Amino acid sequence: MDIKTIELKKTILEDNDKDAELLRAQLKGTKTFYVNVMSSPGSGKTTTLVSTIRALQEPANAQRPLKIGVMEADIDSDVDARTIAAQTDAASVQLHTGGMCHLDAEMSRQGLREIGHEDLDLVFLENVGNLVCPAEFDTGAHMKAVILSVPEGDDKPLKYPLMFDEADVVLVTKIDAMEAFDFAPETFRENLAGVNPDAPVFFLSGATGEGVAEWAAWLRGQIEKFLV
Amino acid sequence: MDIKTIELKKTILEDNDKDAELLRAQLKGTKTFYVNVMSSPGSGKTTTLVSTIRALQEPANAQRPLKIGVMEADIDSDVDARTIAAQTDAASVQLHTGGMCHLDAEMSRQGLREIGHEDLDLVFLENVGNLVCPAEFDTGAHMKAVILSVPEGDDKPLKYPLMFDEADVVLVTKIDAMEAFDFAPETFRENLAGVNPDAPVFFLSGATGEGVAEWAAWLRGQIEKFLV
Repeated sequence: MDIKTIELKKTILEDNDKDAELLRAQLKGTKTFYVNVMSSPGSGKTTTLVSTIRALQEPANAQRPLKIGVMEADIDSDVDARTIAAQTDAASVQLHTGGMCHLDAEMSRQGLREIGHEDLDLVFLENVGNLVCPAEFDTGAHMKAVILSVPEGDDKPLKYPLMFDEADVVLVTKIDAMEAFDFAPETFRENLAGVNPDAPVFFLSGATGEGVAEWAAWLRGQIEKFLV
Repeated sequence: MDIKTIELKKTILEDNDKDAELLRAQLKGTKTFYVNVMSSPGSGKTTTLVSTIRALQEPANAQRPLKIGVMEADIDSDVDARTIAAQTDAASVQLHTGGMCHLDAEMSRQGLREIGHEDLDLVFLENVGNLVCPAEFDTGAHMKAVILSVPEGDDKPLKYPLMFDEADVVLVTKIDAMEAFDFAPETFRENLAGVNPDAPVFFLSGATGEGVAEWAAWLRGQIEKFLV
């Protein structure tokens, strides 16, 4: 006999997609550029955010200073929000997901309300460290940045195709460790092109600072385009 | 410095609690008694539901036949809904959670709409097999039945206190295996009393049918009280 099956996740995702579109439009109205940063745990999201925020605020790079906020999502700690507050001039807020492995549009909205997005030009969300669930949920961001650290391997676009497909930009971090970990940039580019041929890729090192200025200049350009 | 922290899960649970109260009232309006059945995987939820439905429909036990539905929640299979459909006269529907480990009130509502709860006296939800997350989410049910199988051990109320605290009734299944697994009913009752002294406990065997008539008679009484 025929059993009727209801795909609950599909309707949850559809509802979230609508809510995310609404949030994105609301943020356009308040001129707040919202960037969703995703990666595995330990790939250097917080370090990358600190160096990115500092580079964005370099006088030479900035037509005008940006007002920046960071929302740090975590199961239950607040170490990342403390790092941002200690090392940058950005506003920061900690979001506890209480065990959930992703953020959705409504959770974003709560954080954005708390951080006061109306007064900010740019808000980063450091999503929960995970290459699977966060890719499925539209947070309402204008840009999705996916970070992959060299020690994770150049094959990751093959193993997590949805995450890399969703990326608007890919940041490869810890490039100073490339030789030690046998990571081939060209192999990575080929693997990425298989799922997402259009995303720009920046190679960064938190240790040497290499690549940060180029990435920050590109991001600044995207923000300026959004803010006009 | 002081970092502001937002507990996202708390507001999600509060929103769900309100929605669950609304659903519970709506089901009272359509005279549909809704039972949320929770347990670990493999503890005998489906087998217990089959024997319970059959016992509820015994002519001697029934003032009038009940119209019964079963919603089978699962990550992605539909074997349990097929079992219910093949072995009972209950309506059944399969709910795919797509990886989520619990059902909330809105997910319940989708399933209830699909199964046509207005025409049913009694709907069972077989929740996702898990003793943690499902306990936190009110599905809008009028009764929460927690199943523990003897092989899982008589210490489980100590290890999963929230689940056993939430139970309106506890069913201990596979009691024919009690000696083989060194499960002491009195120890179990003491452990349960520590977190939930009020929940009635029924001891059942799917193999011998022991205890099923008593549990079904008690449940029938609860349903009759609800339907008047």
